[in-house]
Amino acid sequence: MLTITGNYTDLYQISMAQVYFHEQHNQPAVFDYFFRKNPFQGGYTVFAGLSTLLDTLEQLHFSPADLTYLKSQGFQADFIDYLADFRFKGTIHSCREGDLVFPNAPVITVKANLIEAQLIETVLLNTVNFQSLIATKAARIRSVAAAATLLDFGLRRAQGPGGYYASRAAMIGGFDGTSHVKAAQDFELKAAGTMAHSFVQSYDDELTAFRSFAKDQPHNTVLLVDSYNTLKSGVPNAIIVGQEMAQRGHHLKAIRLDSGDLAYLSKQSRQMLDAAGLTDVHIAASNQLDEHVIKSLIEQQAPIDIFGVGTSLVIGRPDGALDGVYKLAYFKDKPRFKLSENIKKMTLPGHKQVHRLSNSHGQFVGADVITLADEPAPTSMLHPYEPFKSMDLSSLTATAMLNPVMLNGQRCTAKVKLSEIAQHVQSQMALLAIDYRRFDNPHQYKVGISPALKQQRDQLITQLRS
Amino acid sequence: MLTITGNYTDLYQISMAQVYFHEQHNQPAVFDYFFRKNPFQGGYTVFAGLSTLLDTLEQLHFSPADLTYLKSQGFQADFIDYLADFRFKGTIHSCREGDLVFPNAPVITVKANLIEAQLIETVLLNTVNFQSLIATKAARIRSVAAAATLLDFGLRRAQGPGGYYASRAAMIGGFDGTSHVKAAQDFELKAAGTMAHSFVQSYDDELTAFRSFAKDQPHNTVLLVDSYNTLKSGVPNAIIVGQEMAQRGHHLKAIRLDSGDLAYLSKQSRQMLDAAGLTDVHIAASNQLDEHVIKSLIEQQAPIDIFGVGTSLVIGRPDGALDGVYKLAYFKDKPRFKLSENIKKMTLPGHKQVHRLSNSHGQFVGADVITLADEPAPTSMLHPYEPFKSMDLSSLTATAMLNPVMLNGQRCTAKVKLSEIAQHVQSQMALLAIDYRRFDNPHQYKVGISPALKQQRDQLITQLRS
Repeated sequence: MLTITGNYTDLYQISMAQVYFHEQHNQPAVFDYFFRKNPFQGGYTVFAGLSTLLDTLEQLHFSPADLTYLKSQGFQADFIDYLADFRFKGTIHSCREGDLVFPNAPVITVKANLIEAQLIETVLLNTVNFQSLIATKAARIRSVAAAATLLDFGLRRAQGPGGYYASRAAMIGGFDGTSHVKAAQDFELKAAGTMAHSFVQSYDDELTAFRSFAKDQPHNTVLLVDSYNTLKSGVPNAIIVGQEMAQRGHHLKAIRLDSGDLAYLSKQSRQMLDAAGLTDVHIAASNQLDEHVIKSLIEQQAPIDIFGVGTSLVIGRPDGALDGVYKLAYFKDKPRFKLSENIKKMTLPGHKQVHRLSNSHGQFVGADVITLADEPAPTSMLHPYEPFKSMDLSSLTATAMLNPVMLNGQRCTAKVKLSEIAQHVQSQMALLAIDYRRFDNPHQYKVGISPALKQQRDQLITQLRS
Repeated sequence: MLTITGNYTDLYQISMAQVYFHEQHNQPAVFDYFFRKNPFQGGYTVFAGLSTLLDTLEQLHFSPADLTYLKSQGFQADFIDYLADFRFKGTIHSCREGDLVFPNAPVITVKANLIEAQLIETVLLNTVNFQSLIATKAARIRSVAAAATLLDFGLRRAQGPGGYYASRAAMIGGFDGTSHVKAAQDFELKAAGTMAHSFVQSYDDELTAFRSFAKDQPHNTVLLVDSYNTLKSGVPNAIIVGQEMAQRGHHLKAIRLDSGDLAYLSKQSRQMLDAAGLTDVHIAASNQLDEHVIKSLIEQQAPIDIFGVGTSLVIGRPDGALDGVYKLAYFKDKPRFKLSENIKKMTLPGHKQVHRLSNSHGQFVGADVITLADEPAPTSMLHPYEPFKSMDLSSLTATAMLNPVMLNGQRCTAKVKLSEIAQHVQSQMALLAIDYRRFDNPHQYKVGISPALKQQRDQLITQLRS
């Protein structure tokens, strides 16, 4: 649906690239992608968007229209010729899509000639920041929804075409289907949806509207019952139609509540349906849902089988963005470093690896350690900023998180089905203690550094400050 | 960049359409687009996205892949054949793009056969809700930024490809340029941007980095001065390069501050630049800006000439969505109405017009009145819910806001340049009293209804409740 070409970037990437091109300042560089804060004041982030990114990078090029435009902006002919042949030929190490990731540890490292590494920055951030935000939101909702089916209903309130990738990311986080037909089609998701209020309104009465739908689509009938009065009109009419369908050998799939007190109305509706013998008709609910409302409904034992979640999911409310950044760590055979007045904003120099620590039962112990890429598995880790904090890792298993996903511009791992990525998320969530998953003041996952990395960084600080 | 086809919609639109198709329940209908709450707790909303929507509707069709997918989902062959020939042939009345619009008054009315009107709902909402959100955010920022240049730097944190339309909407709201090259190219915006921290880091020292850039792009040099130490290193090095450029007959355009206390640093930098004779070098600032931070900087007389605004702008923080809806108002020769337990959620039945009221000086008086479409200009208006509130309109000028923009599926107004839409926004803002534009508890713009519309609605309520 969406074609990303070279100009889908910030102008400064191209301005810098022209300087690098003219100065032959284009040796191999390493950039780290990482973020500084989990969204939603939560204890984890679900990494998503990797496959979308790799697809984009494999085909990324400047179109003739792109080049014409850049020429009109004053870029020089020799550089435009370079861009005409531009392809990303770099190597990418990354966490697996669906991994749980934590602040300040690299999630992706890009090794490429400086121009190439720079020219993919914006699209990398644009892709991975957003999908990770939404996958995390979806995982939070999944974590409280018990066995209920979760449907993404958000396209109408999504940030324009952002909604397309929001649907993809929602599935990664644990949703079961989407109302968005195009997303379902392209990403092999389950498409869901039957009727709006306008359907009911367009008939002279509710019962006629329900019968019309049931007659036309008896295998996919979900009746929206709140157009007039849920308990006095909607549910009684749905029961009539449900019984008529049963007589014809069909089955009313569900009713949907879209307003009012969903806990109260679902309980009353359930009783009415059950009393009419329609015990297998499900109850769906929608209307400004998020993880907090769903948690409350589940705690109240509201008999809701299907939740339709819209705005809050697809825009990742309230945060709306993951603060991921892309920082130069290595260039021209030297580790590179961004000094800052704020020690927390200093970067970590050099090509690095991230190891996740597990105990003898395979459970995450709640700590990752960042090392130099070529170090052996670490035996101790240090706090990145606080000088006297350290941790002995000898009894723990360290698993390298950053593995090659692209070599010389070509994917080097098989494409994984979205359902497998979603399963991976759930398997990782099960390895993370509940303290890190709770909504209020979650326990803080530790990200430390190896002694060798600390030494390299501190040397650079001394050097730059002198 | 983005191709919208028929399946860019919610599944229920297609499910409902199949019922309508089989039942020949496809007479002319009227739907209203309106929203219920101004974003950002503000006093107005800037309407944006109309031209994008009309472009989409003119070419909207189901692709062969769309149809194959729908067949796989169980839609029937006769209906698929209908969709294969589907084109939107309806008529649209709308506010002008760039108009200031207010809660509950229709902003767009769509008149089309029921299936067509239903099948465009999702893309209409997806387009107009988002662009109006961002244009409103941009207008708020413009309203406090005095004469400063405003640049959109948001693509990296945008909601995926939502960032493309965010850039368009930002210009409508009053921004001067964008870092997003593709958006600049497609929407004829000013593209802006020079260097990142990685540029400075990639050289062995800051001065060499600055000189390299100035040499390569002397007509577009903005030096990022906070990589090491803004006042001790960045600004002094920028001054050296600025003076060297001047000697070669060039001109350093600006320095950019991207961290620290922007008020303090901009004042110090201005003094240093001025003392070195570089009085015409501008100061740009970025780093988590929004309307509140910019307002504070302007109040502190920070000498900043250019603001680069990212995340908050392009995701419309904190709201992230405008709550616009699309409601059936008329079908099969009858006004239609959505009853609700909540009187504020009841819709207004029938095909309608909105009149804006101005005084004899042409200033908005702070009230719109909704009438039936075929009523003459109203002489009095009533509060929509409160029975004893009314207003005499005899001394005011009423201007019809909803005018034809599409007839039988074809645009019937000329495409307007984005810069003209942006000018229109500013001209309308000047007509709106400052009380409605302030950030804290803005005065509430009134939206009333005509006596004839009230009578029609109240009759329907009585009828439906009996």
